[in-house]
Amino acid sequence: MSADDNPLRDPQDRRLPRIAGPCGLVIFGVTGDLARKKLMPAVYDLASRGLLPPGFSLVGFARRDWADQDFAQVVHDAVKEHARTEFREEVWQQLAEGFRFVQGDFDDDLAFATLRQTILDLDRVRGTKGNHAFYLSIPPRYFANVIGQLKEHGLAEQQAGSWRRVVVEKPFGSNLETARELNAIVSEVFPSGSVFRIDHYLGKETVQNILAMRFANAMFEPIWNSNYVDHVQITMAEDIGIGGRAGYYDGIGAARDVIQNHLMQLMALIAMEEPTSFDARSLRIEKQKVLESVVLPRRLDLSTARAQYVEGWAGGVKVPGYKDEQDIPDDSRTETYAAIKLGIDNRRWSGVPFYLRHGKRLGRRVTEVAVVFKQAPHLPFSATATEELTHNALVIRVQPDEGITLRFGSKVPGTAMEIRDVNMDFAYGGSFTESSPEAYERLILDVLLGDPPLFPRHEEVELSWKILDPIVEYWAGHGQPDTYPAGTWGPASADAMLARDGRVWRRP
Amino acid sequence: MSADDNPLRDPQDRRLPRIAGPCGLVIFGVTGDLARKKLMPAVYDLASRGLLPPGFSLVGFARRDWADQDFAQVVHDAVKEHARTEFREEVWQQLAEGFRFVQGDFDDDLAFATLRQTILDLDRVRGTKGNHAFYLSIPPRYFANVIGQLKEHGLAEQQAGSWRRVVVEKPFGSNLETARELNAIVSEVFPSGSVFRIDHYLGKETVQNILAMRFANAMFEPIWNSNYVDHVQITMAEDIGIGGRAGYYDGIGAARDVIQNHLMQLMALIAMEEPTSFDARSLRIEKQKVLESVVLPRRLDLSTARAQYVEGWAGGVKVPGYKDEQDIPDDSRTETYAAIKLGIDNRRWSGVPFYLRHGKRLGRRVTEVAVVFKQAPHLPFSATATEELTHNALVIRVQPDEGITLRFGSKVPGTAMEIRDVNMDFAYGGSFTESSPEAYERLILDVLLGDPPLFPRHEEVELSWKILDPIVEYWAGHGQPDTYPAGTWGPASADAMLARDGRVWRRP
Repeated sequence: MSADDNPLRDPQDRRLPRIAGPCGLVIFGVTGDLARKKLMPAVYDLASRGLLPPGFSLVGFARRDWADQDFAQVVHDAVKEHARTEFREEVWQQLAEGFRFVQGDFDDDLAFATLRQTILDLDRVRGTKGNHAFYLSIPPRYFANVIGQLKEHGLAEQQAGSWRRVVVEKPFGSNLETARELNAIVSEVFPSGSVFRIDHYLGKETVQNILAMRFANAMFEPIWNSNYVDHVQITMAEDIGIGGRAGYYDGIGAARDVIQNHLMQLMALIAMEEPTSFDARSLRIEKQKVLESVVLPRRLDLSTARAQYVEGWAGGVKVPGYKDEQDIPDDSRTETYAAIKLGIDNRRWSGVPFYLRHGKRLGRRVTEVAVVFKQAPHLPFSATATEELTHNALVIRVQPDEGITLRFGSKVPGTAMEIRDVNMDFAYGGSFTESSPEAYERLILDVLLGDPPLFPRHEEVELSWKILDPIVEYWAGHGQPDTYPAGTWGPASADAMLARDGRVWRRP
Repeated sequence: MSADDNPLRDPQDRRLPRIAGPCGLVIFGVTGDLARKKLMPAVYDLASRGLLPPGFSLVGFARRDWADQDFAQVVHDAVKEHARTEFREEVWQQLAEGFRFVQGDFDDDLAFATLRQTILDLDRVRGTKGNHAFYLSIPPRYFANVIGQLKEHGLAEQQAGSWRRVVVEKPFGSNLETARELNAIVSEVFPSGSVFRIDHYLGKETVQNILAMRFANAMFEPIWNSNYVDHVQITMAEDIGIGGRAGYYDGIGAARDVIQNHLMQLMALIAMEEPTSFDARSLRIEKQKVLESVVLPRRLDLSTARAQYVEGWAGGVKVPGYKDEQDIPDDSRTETYAAIKLGIDNRRWSGVPFYLRHGKRLGRRVTEVAVVFKQAPHLPFSATATEELTHNALVIRVQPDEGITLRFGSKVPGTAMEIRDVNMDFAYGGSFTESSPEAYERLILDVLLGDPPLFPRHEEVELSWKILDPIVEYWAGHGQPDTYPAGTWGPASADAMLARDGRVWRRP
């Protein structure tokens, strides 16, 4: 294993910033939202932190008829609006010298020839030394085209001592079959070590901290198993609706959009055994073992829930239901809320349900993992003293307000013994002067460094689909989704699903 | 066991305030500091909270030549200055009607006859029904006198359906022998169930919460043993010097003044097994088992430290050394700082040292218990990544700033994996709207209710002396105490004592 593969065990001090060597980044779909809001600002922030090489180059590729200057202006505005670090003219000037724009369709031979020439020029004038990453920030239906063109024009070929990498954004297919097709297309052109699948949740500090928290400390791991854990709730709640994304979203839905990738990755990190190290291979082995051990409940009708939001209130404003959103057909059966119950059949987790839920237009934007513990085997208190005591819980707040909360029982001040839940809190913001890099900052840098630990492998992607496919198929064969008013916490069927197990969803 | 003995398992809802039945309180030494600063305000606060019976009576007994009105004025001023709850005229008026003052020496027959008559009068006019508690807020050399007089004048005799109780303040002797003598004197007159020894630490909310925290929760107990705990530090640090207490303090010293009672009680609560219930008997059994299992290290020279403060700085002001304090002899060998290491030889704690320390004129006023955990058996990180990671710790802050802190390792935000200690915090103040009663409020009410769980029994007192005596004797035979400048954290010998074990004292 190369040092590049193992950012954490490297004999060098890994606390020093890792600076990317000579290289460039090509973004396909550079006019899209993701590019403007996340990728361009992340590139600037990396430059601002001195983590990019001096000759770093950024090539935009899109249909729009822009000159290099137009592109630079768009990046400039995006950075000004969205960058995390302060705008500094000297950083900007140096960075902007490496901007190029290539205009063309994804099946336009001439455009790809131009791209090739642009890259060769950059190698010459900017010293990028043949090292280039291609970021596919485009709808999946164009993946085959672009990857085919990259191959066709020799852009995927790694010369000795240089590298070519491809970055793929989710969705990685829409079921096991299409995921396999996609993986086949990509792997035909790029070796697996050169493919970086972005699940931006894995770039988040709080998600990476799951591993630090579990394995750098002595006190959590002893209770991290079915002896002590009652169940786990993994929640990603959005307060927004589908916005202008009807074309992408309808027919996909909550389970495939979020549960298959973000939530299953979170589950794998929470449930996995200690890896022998934190290199990509060791991490993948452990995550994969979790996903391979997942079992579905026998009765999918009793252990899943799905629903569509209907008209309701969000942030004090009346908002339309899903079917009234622009471009959503009246008979759409796409779920905007999904909750599923999974088991993990191994020694550590047997009998502990993992509840995963995601929804749009819920009460609040929040992503969290709650490890809910069993009650003490015996409470040497009177029943009334512990009436308001629920379960101990360790809650990892992924976003917003990143941190960790421990819920436990404490005596209520006063002369009688009454015990009530209280929260002990750790907030990233309050504990570190270092501000958290954006997930995309971390992930783009890792791509340029060739550090794969934070990117899911195709095996994990396929395993996740294997878990989800039977649920989605079951839903497809069983009528309409339920409904829930926008601004609430989902359908009654989801509450009933937990109530059957004697549990309740957290209201985070 | 009567319901009175068991405040926590009572079939009634123990969250309702418990109101004392008809009764009165007699305070001996009512002109002292403790009476003015703690006892009188506590009585008012209880009245203000409606926890005293309507006819409650407070009798002051002292040498001073006061009339009832003078006494009432002193209580009034003490309450105005020190009470926790708001001063309300109607509460005060009703309470003050029950005030009486008896003037006399502790060997004055006439005074005790007057006291007897006063009590009989109160029974008649205030309806105290023969129920009276005698609070001995006096130097221990007078205990025998007062208790003898109480017996002599029939004041200790419980008539059918009424009670007499005696409240004893520490010190409960100054070694095992004198403690036994004292217990013999008291028990000759009062049955053991009528003797209430005040260790006011046990009345503190945070101390009571140790039991709630340990036994109402599922997540702490599994790691509360020698498999996971490296050691425990119990600290009571004072920033003040001995003030005007030379007469009491010199010849007693830090170990006997604080470690023998407060710190050993804290140790017992931290270390004990789950009691079958929270009644006095069950608690005592478990605390006693801990104290019985305590073992001293073989080499007392290497595992204890003691010192006297010398001139230094406290709160920006130059302060004198111990020997320069008023009324302290130049050749005093009394320690103002003591640190001892104890072991508990049972299955749970074998091999886990408990370090107890107390000192005056230290850097800060703080009492805390720190349970310091072992490091994880394996850290799958690079050595540099965890360089700044120490040990997980659970710290119970007894005072001030009551609460609980959990120290654990977390990833430092940034692109590399670096792990550093962070704190997760729970503060009583921030978590409950209820404000914490003062320890004396709780304890006086418990005396009036006849609730003994929070009062140490004579067996515990004697066991504590049995532990401490050999240490104090060793010191007496081995030269002068070390020194430390006022305002620092104790002598070098105390640091060396922990360094020998590869550990360091917390700087709280």
